[in-house]
Amino acid sequence: MGNNRVGIQTIAFSRQPRIASSYTIVGPLEGKGPYALEFQEILPDDTLQQKTPEKTERLMLEMAIEKTLQQNDTKISDVQFYIAGDLLNQIISSCFSARTYPIPFLGVYGACSTFCEALGLGAIMLQGDFADQVLIGTASHYQTAERQFRYPIEMNIQHHGTNHHTVTGAAAALLNLGTEGPRITHATFGSIVDWGLKDANDMGSAMAPAAFSTLKQHLIDTGRKIEDYDLILTGDLGKQGSKMLKILLSHENYTGLERIQDGGASIYSDQQKTGAGGSGSACVAVMTLGYLKNKLNSSKVKRVLILATGALLSATSSLQGDSIPCIAHGIALEA
Amino acid sequence: MGNNRVGIQTIAFSRQPRIASSYTIVGPLEGKGPYALEFQEILPDDTLQQKTPEKTERLMLEMAIEKTLQQNDTKISDVQFYIAGDLLNQIISSCFSARTYPIPFLGVYGACSTFCEALGLGAIMLQGDFADQVLIGTASHYQTAERQFRYPIEMNIQHHGTNHHTVTGAAAALLNLGTEGPRITHATFGSIVDWGLKDANDMGSAMAPAAFSTLKQHLIDTGRKIEDYDLILTGDLGKQGSKMLKILLSHENYTGLERIQDGGASIYSDQQKTGAGGSGSACVAVMTLGYLKNKLNSSKVKRVLILATGALLSATSSLQGDSIPCIAHGIALEA
Repeated sequence: MGNNRVGIQTIAFSRQPRIASSYTIVGPLEGKGPYALEFQEILPDDTLQQKTPEKTERLMLEMAIEKTLQQNDTKISDVQFYIAGDLLNQIISSCFSARTYPIPFLGVYGACSTFCEALGLGAIMLQGDFADQVLIGTASHYQTAERQFRYPIEMNIQHHGTNHHTVTGAAAALLNLGTEGPRITHATFGSIVDWGLKDANDMGSAMAPAAFSTLKQHLIDTGRKIEDYDLILTGDLGKQGSKMLKILLSHENYTGLERIQDGGASIYSDQQKTGAGGSGSACVAVMTLGYLKNKLNSSKVKRVLILATGALLSATSSLQGDSIPCIAHGIALEA
Repeated sequence: MGNNRVGIQTIAFSRQPRIASSYTIVGPLEGKGPYALEFQEILPDDTLQQKTPEKTERLMLEMAIEKTLQQNDTKISDVQFYIAGDLLNQIISSCFSARTYPIPFLGVYGACSTFCEALGLGAIMLQGDFADQVLIGTASHYQTAERQFRYPIEMNIQHHGTNHHTVTGAAAALLNLGTEGPRITHATFGSIVDWGLKDANDMGSAMAPAAFSTLKQHLIDTGRKIEDYDLILTGDLGKQGSKMLKILLSHENYTGLERIQDGGASIYSDQQKTGAGGSGSACVAVMTLGYLKNKLNSSKVKRVLILATGALLSATSSLQGDSIPCIAHGIALEA
């Protein structure tokens, strides 16, 4: 068994790669939510003067990367990999953003869990001596996701209470083996969990079993309990999915459930009428690199687990009557 | 600098991970082409009795994985990662295929270069002691790609001479540090190259500069010349893109160009009227794990380079007037 592994599904990073710098951008709606002060930049409008929301999404990602590199005074030529993904077909926000950076690009896809897939792979590159510095990024936009997965917003389709609202935002991070920023200690990459749920208007319920499965395996692999974490940030189960996750955990007598908080269920206030809460690949990314990183930096929390969930459906698979395969990747961070 | 790296963009695998077993499946058209005898299985029809081509594509991938595991007498529980990607929106063929295998799943996307991204990442997992065995896979289907990127085949749209024909097929491989199968010696992950070309009906010309860039960097990083390889398999530049690549190489006085063969330009005969040749994420995968692996196993060639190219556009980006960002990943194999 490889010496970087603990248990069945978990990788332990003895070299403790760090999130050396990062930048988060959110749209106006997220900028009016309860976590507004945690993000580095709030856009005055959700267009950035671009002709299409797809171009806005891409530009947000490029802005986040630019600021992340600036913050750490790093030239792109000193970075060995850019790892990114997003919700759009053929992950075009990521692919097009990568044009600006002449370094090896690895496109990844895990729906709303994409950020943790990139974060874990970036840590692997550093731990295994494949890179000195790795850049990761993701973005999403309410309008691009709505028109790709559901209907154009101009149609003003009524939403269900269990519908998520895709976060408009972008986040990027620079990972290295330096001395600044939160340390990445473990990654538990998830396997697909599909309990047969088919309702694309309730992805929280579909994803909860995946979050449950990865959390359980992570705790077994590391010999930890929920109480060993000051905070477990799931994303993006939303209100419905969070409820389901806690039911699943209670059934197996887990304790410390009050330490679990969902990024999607938190990012908007109830008054903002966003259904079950936020989703989109930017959601858990801005909540981690904004809110959670701030808490770690100010030592309000010492050890946290991010548990990013993804619903790996497409409009085509739903139309063809398929259920929703889900996944969750767990990443443990320490101050 | 990490000790697994040589030059700027290349990783050297001192532990020499191997392609322990693999399986290739192709559709009836590919099964009538000049390389038919190189593939393990030729489907009698391109439906596999599925209701939709998307379900056929997924089933082909699952069949390829099943046979790959059987061939090496390996249980899925002894494999640590399943890394896969495909052309479909939200890479659903890969995500759904992963439901069958309860091991960590990493979704990747690099259009037709996806196979080499997965192969390189798999080798990284083994080299860095993150896994003992890694499963990789990809698939594509003429009908799913046509209707997603162009028009449903029922519309019988006339194709250009520079249009590619998406390969119907699937391929999977099991990688480990054992003693069987070709060794993976180097990976040169590519950066995005975009020369501003916008013609989605001529992706070969758009991708040629990416192949050129990665090949050039690979040769610089390793201190090798083209003649150090018995064969360089590009994919999927097609006829037009191959011509462009050779022009670019000639301009910089590279020699040994007769050693470069394109998977897409080879897989169909001229009589099959498939435009510039094959493409799709299965194309370079079946040509590598079929044709190339057979050649390596029978010692007809000793050292080869796969140079998988990808056009990272989407239907949306093309409609919005964007150019085509391209990428190429290089993987060196030895018998």
